[in-house]
Amino acid sequence: MANAEIIAVGSELLTADKIDTNSLWLTDQLNALGVEVRRKLVVGDDRKLLAESIRQSLQNADLVILTGGLGPTEDDVTREATSEALGRGLVFRQDLLDALLERFQRLNRKMADNNRRQTFLIAGAESLPNDRGTAAGQWIDCEGKVLMLLPGPPNELQAMFTGQCAAKLRGKLPVRVIRIRLYRVAGMGESDLDQLISPVYKPYENPVTTILAGAGDIQIHLRAHGETEQEAEALLAAVGSPIEELLGDRIYSRDGSNLETVTGGMLRAGGATLCVAESCSGGLLGGRITSVPGSSDYYLGGFLVYSDAMKTRLLGVDAELLRTHTSVSEEAAKAMATSARARTGSTFALSVTGEAGPESQSGAPVGTVIIGFAGPAGEPEAATYRLFGDRNGVRARAAQWALDYLRRKLR
Amino acid sequence: MANAEIIAVGSELLTADKIDTNSLWLTDQLNALGVEVRRKLVVGDDRKLLAESIRQSLQNADLVILTGGLGPTEDDVTREATSEALGRGLVFRQDLLDALLERFQRLNRKMADNNRRQTFLIAGAESLPNDRGTAAGQWIDCEGKVLMLLPGPPNELQAMFTGQCAAKLRGKLPVRVIRIRLYRVAGMGESDLDQLISPVYKPYENPVTTILAGAGDIQIHLRAHGETEQEAEALLAAVGSPIEELLGDRIYSRDGSNLETVTGGMLRAGGATLCVAESCSGGLLGGRITSVPGSSDYYLGGFLVYSDAMKTRLLGVDAELLRTHTSVSEEAAKAMATSARARTGSTFALSVTGEAGPESQSGAPVGTVIIGFAGPAGEPEAATYRLFGDRNGVRARAAQWALDYLRRKLR
Repeated sequence: MANAEIIAVGSELLTADKIDTNSLWLTDQLNALGVEVRRKLVVGDDRKLLAESIRQSLQNADLVILTGGLGPTEDDVTREATSEALGRGLVFRQDLLDALLERFQRLNRKMADNNRRQTFLIAGAESLPNDRGTAAGQWIDCEGKVLMLLPGPPNELQAMFTGQCAAKLRGKLPVRVIRIRLYRVAGMGESDLDQLISPVYKPYENPVTTILAGAGDIQIHLRAHGETEQEAEALLAAVGSPIEELLGDRIYSRDGSNLETVTGGMLRAGGATLCVAESCSGGLLGGRITSVPGSSDYYLGGFLVYSDAMKTRLLGVDAELLRTHTSVSEEAAKAMATSARARTGSTFALSVTGEAGPESQSGAPVGTVIIGFAGPAGEPEAATYRLFGDRNGVRARAAQWALDYLRRKLR
Repeated sequence: MANAEIIAVGSELLTADKIDTNSLWLTDQLNALGVEVRRKLVVGDDRKLLAESIRQSLQNADLVILTGGLGPTEDDVTREATSEALGRGLVFRQDLLDALLERFQRLNRKMADNNRRQTFLIAGAESLPNDRGTAAGQWIDCEGKVLMLLPGPPNELQAMFTGQCAAKLRGKLPVRVIRIRLYRVAGMGESDLDQLISPVYKPYENPVTTILAGAGDIQIHLRAHGETEQEAEALLAAVGSPIEELLGDRIYSRDGSNLETVTGGMLRAGGATLCVAESCSGGLLGGRITSVPGSSDYYLGGFLVYSDAMKTRLLGVDAELLRTHTSVSEEAAKAMATSARARTGSTFALSVTGEAGPESQSGAPVGTVIIGFAGPAGEPEAATYRLFGDRNGVRARAAQWALDYLRRKLR
């Protein structure tokens, strides 16, 4: 495989708060082209140090990508540092100036003098037009290696790489076909999942398997490369098929869709509607359901009943039931779902109650979460879970578990 | 100021998903000691490339910190690469082996053979004990510069740096006192804020001013360093006082507290209670309010009324009013707040209705959000905003604007 180094330029990227996210996006793109990233650097707006870093990276790698430092102001030093590193001059380009002047005219603004700095190319470089900003990129062939200067703003960089650089790189690199599979999994912890499937994927370097875990939501990425599509697909199947068999219906999505979108699609397909009654999740479940555009097709709304008094006052849950069983009980969850369904007239109702912490109010251990469910057929149901995390981790998992409960009921 | 380079070691940090967060934490710590970070690198588990990177960084900086690659397995190459870069051998240390054996005995586990790799130090290095893991750190003085090898797991690295390295560094560095101010601001956009305050902070390199923006929530960090506390405080005041004057009561917090905590504190102090009625925010407002531990002291719950039918059915909002004014109207927002307050018996009620997009349902432009408010005194109120962002950006800002509306009413 060919290899690359990525240099992010800008003193703001050397603070405690700022992350260089461009290199993550570029790594994904490069991997998909069969290029491995060997090293990443972040360098401040320091011409001498940047020039030295460029020289070092060109010694190490086939491809060096610089991001940022192509702006109009004096602290943007990528052009000058590259010129110094390669020992090549900067050349004024009338066509770049014309394009800039035309851009400013179109926006009805006057071009500032310092934008002229953006009309210079490294001698021998090819200009990469930027239709989203003033900084043109540059593609520089040097002694069998490639050096790219790309703008820092992610939307400009991504459009330029996707629209221009990827095709040019593909022409230079040995052909590798990349195929990807993605599974999303709910209802189990990351370490349990990894213990289950690691014997399957660990023996393989190709495909590369990556596991990303959020609160109760796990993504498994498989990425295989081969000389032909058949080879890549066969490698994917060698790892993917046994994983699918092991996980069964815990896999809720194969196209990247999240759980609120998947369950929303099931409700829409069945012509059904949904309401919620939330206690410990406090609105997070409703918030997730309504994050999907068009969710008003199947989602009606619901009740935030944070106190026992509100469970009785807004939902009519029997105060005696709450005293006997506490609000963190399957009885309470069933009563909440039943009443929310009756009061909204929805087909299905989900309820969430539990102890998110830091202290227990009901006596149930912190992390206890109960999901209730009511529908047109059968008795209301409830299930008790012991979820992991701090207060907001438990709350986020409670919403995820509720959506997964619904998914399994609708299946 | 002294300067540093940070090298994160590990091939897993060169994937599209993994971020080197240790360098962010270390940057914060180093800045607080008056040390500037000049460059950051991420290098895979490649001994030769790592050795070369260490040599280069030692040429550039006073202080070089390596994180990771100190584990027991063959792919952990930080010790060998450092040995190669410095031209110093690795020395077996019986005391490190004794400590490891004692650790395993305490945990009632057998030490694996490859843990012996962790008992070797660079010749001349000082060992940094690790009470949270098996990887001892190393402090290496070399020709007036300092090289530190620290473990990769954040909890081990942080305990080692805070407990051992910071004090040793302080003894080596010129004394710098660091003082910090933090403002959190609501109710204005980032570019408006920056336009307002940049003439104040731009002329100063010390304090360093950093502006972090979330959805409608802006943090302004000022960090000043000086030889004495008085000098640092005077520098902070020179920038902070005019900023406070310009922003006035848009500053809602000076101690880092978020808006749900600040408004919660105001409600608790006044012995008041709150309920919500959410349409386009769909639960996000309730979710934020209940993210604060102890919010049940002042928060009752509320209504998720996503459709017009639910606004009438759950809250009794007049269907004729919704037909005449649409649900995205100040009339609807006021009726929602008034009814939610009556039905829950709370002191105050907040309502949110609007058009989050992608398409408008009511005819109001996407981004239109209306906050309603009802309390014990005076008529219900409402205010209309035009918020920025995609669907979930508008929804997140709607919750933020509602909390800020409440804050200004309670003030």
